[in-house]
Amino acid sequence: MNKPIRIALLGLGTVGSGVYKLIHRRAQEMPQIAGAPIEISHILVRNTAKERPGVDSSLLTDNWADIVNDPEVSIVVELMGGMEPAHTYIAEALKAGKNVVTANKDLIAMHGGDLLDLAAEHQCDLQFEASVAGAIPIIRPLKQCLAGNEISEIMGIVNGTTNYILTRMTQDNMEFADALAMATELGYAEADPTADIEGYDAGRKVAIMASIAFHSRVTFDDVYTEGITKIQSTDIRYARELGKAIKLLGVACNTEEGIEVRVHPMLIPASHPLATVNDAFNAVFVHGDALDDAMFMGRGAGELPTASAVMGDIIDTARNLLMGCTGRIGCTCYKNVPVKSIDDIRSKYYIRLNVENRMGVLAGVSGVLGNNGVSISQVLQKQAAGDSAELVVITDTVRERHIRDALLILENMSMVHEVSSVIRVY
Amino acid sequence: MNKPIRIALLGLGTVGSGVYKLIHRRAQEMPQIAGAPIEISHILVRNTAKERPGVDSSLLTDNWADIVNDPEVSIVVELMGGMEPAHTYIAEALKAGKNVVTANKDLIAMHGGDLLDLAAEHQCDLQFEASVAGAIPIIRPLKQCLAGNEISEIMGIVNGTTNYILTRMTQDNMEFADALAMATELGYAEADPTADIEGYDAGRKVAIMASIAFHSRVTFDDVYTEGITKIQSTDIRYARELGKAIKLLGVACNTEEGIEVRVHPMLIPASHPLATVNDAFNAVFVHGDALDDAMFMGRGAGELPTASAVMGDIIDTARNLLMGCTGRIGCTCYKNVPVKSIDDIRSKYYIRLNVENRMGVLAGVSGVLGNNGVSISQVLQKQAAGDSAELVVITDTVRERHIRDALLILENMSMVHEVSSVIRVY
Repeated sequence: MNKPIRIALLGLGTVGSGVYKLIHRRAQEMPQIAGAPIEISHILVRNTAKERPGVDSSLLTDNWADIVNDPEVSIVVELMGGMEPAHTYIAEALKAGKNVVTANKDLIAMHGGDLLDLAAEHQCDLQFEASVAGAIPIIRPLKQCLAGNEISEIMGIVNGTTNYILTRMTQDNMEFADALAMATELGYAEADPTADIEGYDAGRKVAIMASIAFHSRVTFDDVYTEGITKIQSTDIRYARELGKAIKLLGVACNTEEGIEVRVHPMLIPASHPLATVNDAFNAVFVHGDALDDAMFMGRGAGELPTASAVMGDIIDTARNLLMGCTGRIGCTCYKNVPVKSIDDIRSKYYIRLNVENRMGVLAGVSGVLGNNGVSISQVLQKQAAGDSAELVVITDTVRERHIRDALLILENMSMVHEVSSVIRVY
Repeated sequence: MNKPIRIALLGLGTVGSGVYKLIHRRAQEMPQIAGAPIEISHILVRNTAKERPGVDSSLLTDNWADIVNDPEVSIVVELMGGMEPAHTYIAEALKAGKNVVTANKDLIAMHGGDLLDLAAEHQCDLQFEASVAGAIPIIRPLKQCLAGNEISEIMGIVNGTTNYILTRMTQDNMEFADALAMATELGYAEADPTADIEGYDAGRKVAIMASIAFHSRVTFDDVYTEGITKIQSTDIRYARELGKAIKLLGVACNTEEGIEVRVHPMLIPASHPLATVNDAFNAVFVHGDALDDAMFMGRGAGELPTASAVMGDIIDTARNLLMGCTGRIGCTCYKNVPVKSIDDIRSKYYIRLNVENRMGVLAGVSGVLGNNGVSISQVLQKQAAGDSAELVVITDTVRERHIRDALLILENMSMVHEVSSVIRVY
């Protein structure tokens, strides 16, 4: 039998604990699955004195040097998250010829390119399946199974917290604040939910997927993000009347004028496969020239689902180690495609306005839109109360900058009390 | 730059033509994607004289020896289908140290184990992603991404023809024969549709998926198959009233008493992700102990979708060739789990009966079911006409053999004119 492959876990939070459990749960089968036993030799934690039930405390260390200088450690599994010290540790591990598996989307979305270059230089694996959409296989399918395609579009629900919030708003008519409170109570939302509800978390995942799908480096800085804090249950109700659902989507398109990468709420047809992906589930929809449409759905977060993806990477790296082919699949960004400004992106829009309740208002609004090159596809006149009325306009496809110009004018018209919502329409 | 990797295509039908097109469409990028140019050096066809527009006729040969004896050919791509001569050619190619990519589900479902052993003996790749569910990545995700899981269940819509037929029956209230005729006209069904409509095609795919998911060899012979020829639009209508859809499902479960592998129509809740997979789309639902639920959806057949999966395998093998690690992932069946008889499988059932239209019939039917250990969960009394009435019974979970015993008796009772339908319920 091959001698054990020794791995070091950096971090023993939710995902780290999941990986610890899975490694032990599968220990007996690893020689057959991976080709050799897989053993944890170190666990890097901040506080080695803390009680950790079920964890072999002899593995704990707070000293990174113990790991990076140990020639027996061949895979470093980084599950601390955040930029530092994760960035430094991963770079040092690669320089020491150690393979790296990470679930760190923040880091990969910003520095994935440099780290992959470093991995290539040292003929090491750098794998990060768990950084996007938890348990759902998406990085490896994009890099391998779908490698014969020209991928033109990726669209995904890649943040479970916001999908849970929108599901509650849709199914239980809750308002955003109440749904967020419920998500926090259930542990779906963190104490500071900003990264989720503002779309930053989804934006990092979209940057990673776009880089792989389009073979051109996209970083988080390139991604336009807009969260779900302004969505009201009214919008969800009107969307339903239009046969649509509202989802927070990460969208990446490879167009002739460049790459579009953005995260924002969107009205999608109720019949679209993504429309039925509810609660904390994630799903990624991919369009390629050969495969046509495909969708991958599953758990986007959580202890064991995320650990499932990490384990897949560990096993893959173990197989590469045993076959002497680490670094087998490195960076696949061999193009340099520009990223389009959000101003140049074209979309349809749902615009909900609170307006004066009198004749001539619709003509006024349509006039402003028309003068800015925005044509109207559909108008819903909703309830009126006293001197106020609600107007919902669905536009034809138009460039973002034209909508912005039109909205600036509408916001300053006396007949418009408020531009209540502006949401893109698929 | 690395020297070109030469591949031979066996067969130039629908999938072969798709692969030919894709190889040419991606030719310029292959050095970056795969690490070397990929060139077709031979195409094995029956008739080299036939006109094939767009195909370089100098590559055509009807002589297998030209290919197997050419040391320059490093990947044989078998796209002829069927058992012979595909089986012999693949075995000879592996013995000659050539890597093999195939889309041949018939062959892999029967002889996959032996061929994988042969591949291992010669340190070659034998890849077959396209043999299951067309463009949808499922073999590689199961062997790699989800390798840290104990998979307990796979359930899939893996035959596009029957899914198209059931979709037409559901959405357009068509009867089976009319929907089949439409599928034939549109090219979704073959001239002889037996393998599709009787569930054999799906059975082969389930055998392959079960072998990989449960690490134990399952062949097509082990799979219980039941097709959709007896489904009537009435059943679909009643299912809808019950909040369910009827789908032809391939089901593989790893239970404590052994592996269950079967293909049959099934009533599934309308809210289940598979219920909304319509037309010729395929989808595979997987449950694992770490990942929880996941679903993979996409095109299960067609020229370019299937070629997409073949290309993924070719590129993977090319990368292995360049890294000197062919045979990197071989057979993963290291267990020997028994396959359960269909008689021992437990399920709920939908039973539609045409009975005498009089008092006491329901009591009679319930009595027979009860005497055979079948308890009833729900009864629908449907329309009565003259002396006939329609009765739909949904049972609780029961062992298959008990249902069969009960049906034998029901069929011979004078008060039962006909057992019109028996369909399993998820």
